[in-house]
Amino acid sequence: MTETVPGWLAPGELESIRGRMPILYVDAVPVRLDECGAVTRVGLLLRIGSDGAVSRALVSGRVLLHERVRDALMRHLEKDLGPVALPQVPPSPQPFTIAEYFPTAGVSPYHDPRQHAVSLAYIVPVAGDCRPRQDALDLIWFTPEEAASPAVQQEMTGGQGVLLKQALAHVGRLP
Amino acid sequence: MTETVPGWLAPGELESIRGRMPILYVDAVPVRLDECGAVTRVGLLLRIGSDGAVSRALVSGRVLLHERVRDALMRHLEKDLGPVALPQVPPSPQPFTIAEYFPTAGVSPYHDPRQHAVSLAYIVPVAGDCRPRQDALDLIWFTPEEAASPAVQQEMTGGQGVLLKQALAHVGRLP
Amino acid sequence: MTETVPGWLAPGELESIRGRMPILYVDAVPVRLDECGAVTRVGLLLRIGSDGAVSRALVSGRVLLHERVRDALMRHLEKDLGPVALPQVPPSPQPFTIAEYFPTAGVSPYHDPRQHAVSLAYIVPVAGDCRPRQDALDLIWFTPEEAASPAVQQEMTGGQGVLLKQALAHVGRLP
Amino acid sequence: MTETVPGWLAPGELESIRGRMPILYVDAVPVRLDECGAVTRVGLLLRIGSDGAVSRALVSGRVLLHERVRDALMRHLEKDLGPVALPQVPPSPQPFTIAEYFPTAGVSPYHDPRQHAVSLAYIVPVAGDCRPRQDALDLIWFTPEEAASPAVQQEMTGGQGVLLKQALAHVGRLP
Repeated sequence: MTETVPGWLAPGELESIRGRMPILYVDAVPVRLDECGAVTRVGLLLRIGSDGAVSRALVSGRVLLHERVRDALMRHLEKDLGPVALPQVPPSPQPFTIAEYFPTAGVSPYHDPRQHAVSLAYIVPVAGDCRPRQDALDLIWFTPEEAASPAVQQEMTGGQGVLLKQALAHVGRLP
Repeated sequence: MTETVPGWLAPGELESIRGRMPILYVDAVPVRLDECGAVTRVGLLLRIGSDGAVSRALVSGRVLLHERVRDALMRHLEKDLGPVALPQVPPSPQPFTIAEYFPTAGVSPYHDPRQHAVSLAYIVPVAGDCRPRQDALDLIWFTPEEAASPAVQQEMTGGQGVLLKQALAHVGRLP
Repeated sequence: MTETVPGWLAPGELESIRGRMPILYVDAVPVRLDECGAVTRVGLLLRIGSDGAVSRALVSGRVLLHERVRDALMRHLEKDLGPVALPQVPPSPQPFTIAEYFPTAGVSPYHDPRQHAVSLAYIVPVAGDCRPRQDALDLIWFTPEEAASPAVQQEMTGGQGVLLKQALAHVGRLP
Repeated sequence: MTETVPGWLAPGELESIRGRMPILYVDAVPVRLDECGAVTRVGLLLRIGSDGAVSRALVSGRVLLHERVRDALMRHLEKDLGPVALPQVPPSPQPFTIAEYFPTAGVSPYHDPRQHAVSLAYIVPVAGDCRPRQDALDLIWFTPEEAASPAVQQEMTGGQGVLLKQALAHVGRLP
């Protein structure tokens, strides 16, 4: 017998809904700050994709039914960075931008072959120790210059490299 | 035979999804500007609710599958304000805030008994003539002072009065 | 003999410049956050004005020559809240709004009889202990509801009550 | 006899103040929008610098005493783009970023050898015909890709190329 956890979907349900409606996501850009609040490092997850390819990624995931956006951010940050990362979700619910991921490439800078997803993107200072879990192998801290470099940008997929550069621009650290 | 229009759902489908996932919406606050870009008036729709009650409302609606947020805004603005309203959707996709409507009152300032909806809220200057259509009886232009007054606020439902005050604060016109 | 400290002005110089040019300020709204980043309290300084009147105020002050806005915020926060307040100046330099204080009342919601000042306003989470210094007697933490109440609003001068409500709106906590 | 125009300074006064206090500026990024509000072109002024060098520049200038930021934007836009450009100064006073120009290079991405200036930066849709005046030879409309290209970036001085890329990021058009 399957118990129903609110917000979690039975097998097949997510796939069914993906063909009918845009799916709400959050994207978080983990950053380290100096003592004055200026961004010194950006954190990227090292992931192995379903096709075995290595890629770098932001913290990202779906907002569940009856879940606040703020709680979805906390849940995905804890899932990806571990329990002692001490993420500081910003006080304002205003995202610094939205990313519209379309299943057809080229409609926007963002692409997700599985679905039409709309993501609310936030910059999240992280003060504690990060211990990636689940499908992330590691979290690497890059300088803004490294994060915007072609070497790192080409390891990011689905337009997350563009989203990362938008985050750097928003904090005044785009090289 | 039913033809499938992309993004539009068959009868019953929306109700089915509403119980499984947050639904993505847009809210638009129509404004009139003076020659320097300062807000002089805020536009509110006069609606008759399903229970016959008169209420004032922002332009609001769902984002469809494969539809850009920008196009959803244009579609709902044209639907509610008519074809010659000349709405100026802002160049940045960043909403001035998000409104999280929960089916349970009190979780957030926003409440929608039908569903969990997350709305991206934008301020939209409107330069042309507004001719409300569909279920809206009229569009009335209020001064910022009138819009924030208890008389108007109590005619707004689901927390849209709060969202309107947030919009006024964002444009520097909260009394 | 007077030594020249960069950015600090000799007696009379500030008064002289005030009659010639807008003066750049920063305003900071100190907030307490819950574990998810939502604002739970707003901090207001209790001050005695030059006329002996009691008032409540935001952290506020001038940006000095060759000083970064970020450093000006840190300096005024430490001056007003003490050395162990642990203020978290936000990573983005974008203010949530600007406040234009004019010497003539009524030009904007903000008024400063001494000068034309333009202030960049930021919301600053404060994690440590606040020990007001200098001309501030105390720092009191208010709930968002209390902060927006007429009782508190009428104890704020120069339009800072409006600025406080704009801050509450920006963090989604305007009652 | 010299008449005193409010806000305008006598010869030598600006130079004197520049050594004492940060000077408040505005920067405007002129853009063309499509019918849905998406940015299609960015306008750059072609200028001849005091050293005879050709450069591309944003609309930029000082805020005068007793002048609202909104009015300073309109004044500089009319001065640089002519009387029929129909600039649409945005309804919110919140700049998309601030640019801190320091006389010493390297303190920030922005540099002005004459002074410490802090500029409030806005994106301004322009609907009419632009007829550059004064020291601008021409206004050229670039695609976002062209505007972010090395060829255009290296023709911009004082860090305005970085500011332009931040504007493109804010409107979701950074390549």
